[in-house]
Amino acid sequence: MPPASSHISADTRFQEAAASLGYSFEGELKVGGNYVPLVRDGATLYISGQVPRVGSTVVVTGRVGSEISLAQAQVAAKVCAMRALALLQRELGSLDSVRQILRVTVYTQSAAEFTQQSEVADGASELLHSVLGEAGKHTRTSVGVYQLPKNASVELDLVASAKA
Amino acid sequence: MPPASSHISADTRFQEAAASLGYSFEGELKVGGNYVPLVRDGATLYISGQVPRVGSTVVVTGRVGSEISLAQAQVAAKVCAMRALALLQRELGSLDSVRQILRVTVYTQSAAEFTQQSEVADGASELLHSVLGEAGKHTRTSVGVYQLPKNASVELDLVASAKA
Amino acid sequence: MPPASSHISADTRFQEAAASLGYSFEGELKVGGNYVPLVRDGATLYISGQVPRVGSTVVVTGRVGSEISLAQAQVAAKVCAMRALALLQRELGSLDSVRQILRVTVYTQSAAEFTQQSEVADGASELLHSVLGEAGKHTRTSVGVYQLPKNASVELDLVASAKA
Repeated sequence: MPPASSHISADTRFQEAAASLGYSFEGELKVGGNYVPLVRDGATLYISGQVPRVGSTVVVTGRVGSEISLAQAQVAAKVCAMRALALLQRELGSLDSVRQILRVTVYTQSAAEFTQQSEVADGASELLHSVLGEAGKHTRTSVGVYQLPKNASVELDLVASAKA
Repeated sequence: MPPASSHISADTRFQEAAASLGYSFEGELKVGGNYVPLVRDGATLYISGQVPRVGSTVVVTGRVGSEISLAQAQVAAKVCAMRALALLQRELGSLDSVRQILRVTVYTQSAAEFTQQSEVADGASELLHSVLGEAGKHTRTSVGVYQLPKNASVELDLVASAKA
Repeated sequence: MPPASSHISADTRFQEAAASLGYSFEGELKVGGNYVPLVRDGATLYISGQVPRVGSTVVVTGRVGSEISLAQAQVAAKVCAMRALALLQRELGSLDSVRQILRVTVYTQSAAEFTQQSEVADGASELLHSVLGEAGKHTRTSVGVYQLPKNASVELDLVASAKA
């Protein structure tokens, strides 16, 4: 994907990214139980941790560095980021209303010797920048965890701000 | 516990939750060293990571999925959440002054194949909703970590907002 | 280091802390890719996860509790905290403009039985308090992860607020 241009809406770029991944992010993005996928506090938007689920299937599972390759994990990170963007889009009406992604945390289910957690997270960072342009630049923390819900290879959460 | 009702104060429901767990959350909740259990920034309240400590004892320790069951881990998550609520109550005077729990992160000390981190976190989410009602609905991230301070089975931190 | 005094600037104490560690935090602190080391949102400053890198070298790598001692890990935590402070200093012009460190998360690459993640994080907390005084008191979460980027022993991120 080329870098974001001011002539194309972020929503169009979101659709292009979905097509490029070969996944649809239409339909239900609900989470179970007594928590919610998004909370808005003034201009600040908190997004729950996203695993690479499409529909009801977690599409990338297993330990990165042994069962799962870096390239597969980067796709997983992109899918997580797309889900977060889909939630922002539904809340705000348009991704053009995102002022800034403030903070992203990327958790990678890692093999003992796998140390490319930053490279995994690059998948998400690149996608956020591709879709949102400058508004997609964010601070980031990447860590390697021991397990994740539903054996997901990657989980991502974020905090964003909305335009006034 | 029934869902929160507007006729009973959140503080009463907190007391009922403590009784139901069989633990007291009176007394010292201090942390050691050069950090603090709670920082307030305007209406935003940050709570330090809580392990399931009651008095001076961490009441649930060990690896979830091998040494500790899901049910035990859910109790641990509830105790962590109660500690966070006790800190909010002391800061605000009453839990009825909590406007919203914005974000919760639940870290579970996991066995290699244990993938029910979300179910562990449900213990905390259910408790927050039981005590705070709608104000207890939050975004959440659940991950499986390799170890936790004092061999705790679960650690939880959160960010909340206070009513004006 | 003695506790912070109002007669010495936080920037001077930062220099003293760098000298005491034997490292320089001059020069490039950039991060690669489509993310940034710091994002400012009003008075709130988000800092990306910092590993104990000095120049282009991660100075403390390996698993704490087996390959790396607690004392070495505490130095790693201090170096991470110094990097975060250096970023705040560059953004604000002076560390005296930090109003409060709101939240710190310390991730320690841990051996299976290593449970002193809080003691590792004390290295960072002590340093923040030494340099910033009361403004350096923060909420904190300490967890033990399975791996970290570049095999770093410790990673730290933080959120701070700036004086008006």
